[in-house]
Amino acid sequence: MAETVQVQHDEIAERIKRLQQLMTQAGVHASLITQHVDLYYFTGSMQAGYAFIPAEGTAVFYVRRSMERAVQESAVQVRALNSLRQFRAQLEHDHPAVFGGGTSSAQGVIIATEMDVLPASTYAKLAEVLAGSRRDCSLVDGSTLVRRVRMVKSSWEIGRIEAAAQVVAEALEAAVGIIKEGLTELELMARIEYEIRIRGHIGLMRTRSYNMEITTGMLGSGAAAAVPSAFDGPAGGLGLGPAFPQSTSRKAIGRGEPILIDIGCCIDGYIIDQTRTAVIGSLPDDLAEAYAQAEHIIRQSEVLMRPGTSSESIYAAALKQAADAGLADHFMGYGTNQVKFLGHGIGLEVDEWPVLAKGFGDPLEAGITLAVEPKFTFPGRGVVGIENSYLITDTGCRPLTRSPEGLIVIP
Amino acid sequence: MAETVQVQHDEIAERIKRLQQLMTQAGVHASLITQHVDLYYFTGSMQAGYAFIPAEGTAVFYVRRSMERAVQESAVQVRALNSLRQFRAQLEHDHPAVFGGGTSSAQGVIIATEMDVLPASTYAKLAEVLAGSRRDCSLVDGSTLVRRVRMVKSSWEIGRIEAAAQVVAEALEAAVGIIKEGLTELELMARIEYEIRIRGHIGLMRTRSYNMEITTGMLGSGAAAAVPSAFDGPAGGLGLGPAFPQSTSRKAIGRGEPILIDIGCCIDGYIIDQTRTAVIGSLPDDLAEAYAQAEHIIRQSEVLMRPGTSSESIYAAALKQAADAGLADHFMGYGTNQVKFLGHGIGLEVDEWPVLAKGFGDPLEAGITLAVEPKFTFPGRGVVGIENSYLITDTGCRPLTRSPEGLIVIP
Repeated sequence: MAETVQVQHDEIAERIKRLQQLMTQAGVHASLITQHVDLYYFTGSMQAGYAFIPAEGTAVFYVRRSMERAVQESAVQVRALNSLRQFRAQLEHDHPAVFGGGTSSAQGVIIATEMDVLPASTYAKLAEVLAGSRRDCSLVDGSTLVRRVRMVKSSWEIGRIEAAAQVVAEALEAAVGIIKEGLTELELMARIEYEIRIRGHIGLMRTRSYNMEITTGMLGSGAAAAVPSAFDGPAGGLGLGPAFPQSTSRKAIGRGEPILIDIGCCIDGYIIDQTRTAVIGSLPDDLAEAYAQAEHIIRQSEVLMRPGTSSESIYAAALKQAADAGLADHFMGYGTNQVKFLGHGIGLEVDEWPVLAKGFGDPLEAGITLAVEPKFTFPGRGVVGIENSYLITDTGCRPLTRSPEGLIVIP
Repeated sequence: MAETVQVQHDEIAERIKRLQQLMTQAGVHASLITQHVDLYYFTGSMQAGYAFIPAEGTAVFYVRRSMERAVQESAVQVRALNSLRQFRAQLEHDHPAVFGGGTSSAQGVIIATEMDVLPASTYAKLAEVLAGSRRDCSLVDGSTLVRRVRMVKSSWEIGRIEAAAQVVAEALEAAVGIIKEGLTELELMARIEYEIRIRGHIGLMRTRSYNMEITTGMLGSGAAAAVPSAFDGPAGGLGLGPAFPQSTSRKAIGRGEPILIDIGCCIDGYIIDQTRTAVIGSLPDDLAEAYAQAEHIIRQSEVLMRPGTSSESIYAAALKQAADAGLADHFMGYGTNQVKFLGHGIGLEVDEWPVLAKGFGDPLEAGITLAVEPKFTFPGRGVVGIENSYLITDTGCRPLTRSPEGLIVIP
């Protein structure tokens, strides 16, 4: 009826194997995957249910609905989840090695789940169901295991992100032509969203963090872009009112003010994230200089990004460069509203691992995909900056973003 | 800079008062509001932080960021949330009546929070922080209290939903003109989304349920609309692939097949939800008859909907009418993929209370807003139906939906 892109079954097997290795290291006997995005990652299907992945043995996707679609899509075995009350008995029957004496520790069976996204009441219900009458099973947080596996992308996943990069580049090129004095931020954003949507954007950008929302990014001009917000990013934006207090507003775009176009899209589930800065006419000298500094920081980050370099050292280098340029107070937000990172992983969600931030001391690995977004905020005047997405390769990094760099100047 | 719609402070006070009455009845000493939509509802601001609402006394919004926007927006007192570790001490200081001997029960202080949406790991951290060193405070599920208060809308809120209804009606009228043979579902949906967005749609539709996603609704034609899905609605849709397996697909719209246009938008935070059925040419007789039955069911529902009628009795009446028409197997999905409801509350989220379903025995009340969506699914052929949103008034119900009824026929 319509062609769809499906993940290969051997790739799913590889993902499960990597999770199983982490589970074994962590002393966890099985993972119960509950979130729709994680279900898609580990089964190839986003139907409703739970995937049970033992540290050793065969994964099973217990499906509530739709069974027929799960059977078509899933790379792992599919069984009907008939009753939550019977779920423990069903698991005991299907996974005797987990629930039998074999692997269970003195503390009983330890099952990991995504406590970073699973609502507390559902967690409590599942923990009760899994504990069973013998109370010999505990449900612990396995979100770091899942995020760790998902952090390193396959060549198939990288291809999906590249497809998204191509779509957003085409959309930006198609939309930039309408920018003129008096056009509102909302009118420009609506056009960009139309251009990505007809090219296959799924219609939303998935986030993992509680309360975090992204429409198609953050498009803001002049003072409106520089308004602080609850959004955990370097530029929040005025938004459409207290009920959506971030990103695009109804402000008209003026001459000589920076237009921050931080946009992404989601193709076949995978997200790209990029930022370009535009201006009608020309920027004031100090903002033009800050924009040039943002490009310098991204050049420096490109040199540093390679397997073995820690995420936090790249952030530290950017902080130093901003300070050396006399722009410390403006970097990644202004003053007390600064955010404490330079970039973030991208993939099925926009807020993946790693984060280029203090505390992320682990070395980068080949296969990581991340967005690097140096930006400078000038309250009352605007935000300038650039954002590219990259793949960490065996020897360095490779840009995934397709849009040309440089300030976009509209006459 | 740009006008924004702000909720009146006395309205927030009234909402808090209603929550306090429910807390008192439930034996809860305070509510800790954590979700951004609930924060907006109870403070007028969606900035990041926690609102603490004692059963008796004054609510305080503890804000992490942005303080300056929270101060502008919030109808309740704003204080900085400096450190989660110090949060218990801060609450004890600010709310001595809650934490002192006064109101605390033998079980200690009972604080309610939204366990239906709060992630398990954040819940665990907050429960630990609030328990303090004396372990004299427990964090229980207060989601039903919040949902109960939010279920009954004020005239201000109803006005916002009516504004959304006007936007979606204009967008549908503007987009219907492009329907022709060979146009893809995605092209039609992209145009509708553009039309609602330039009119102020915030760019997303908020849902409360775990794993539930809605772009701008469900637009599907012929066989693609009838494909079952994980989505908890009468029509799932084929979607754009396993990574978004619902709603709009790339299928081309053909002559003589039903085009289900189930769309909504979100204006000033408030959602409208409506469905119209269109066709190029004419529907086969049996599908045309099923569409007429859907209109009959919505007429009957309008007669039944009034204060005092239970939600489940309206669902039961619709089931009976579908069965009497010989369409029981096709009603609200087909066969084992049927969903067990006729409608749902709308407001700040698309899946609000009440649900017109078995088990919802409470009587309707004036001020409830809900969508009623009788639909019939024919596998391999399509879905027909209608959906209007309504306000329950003192004496009956009033439609909020503005789009004309009837099958939309394109020559």
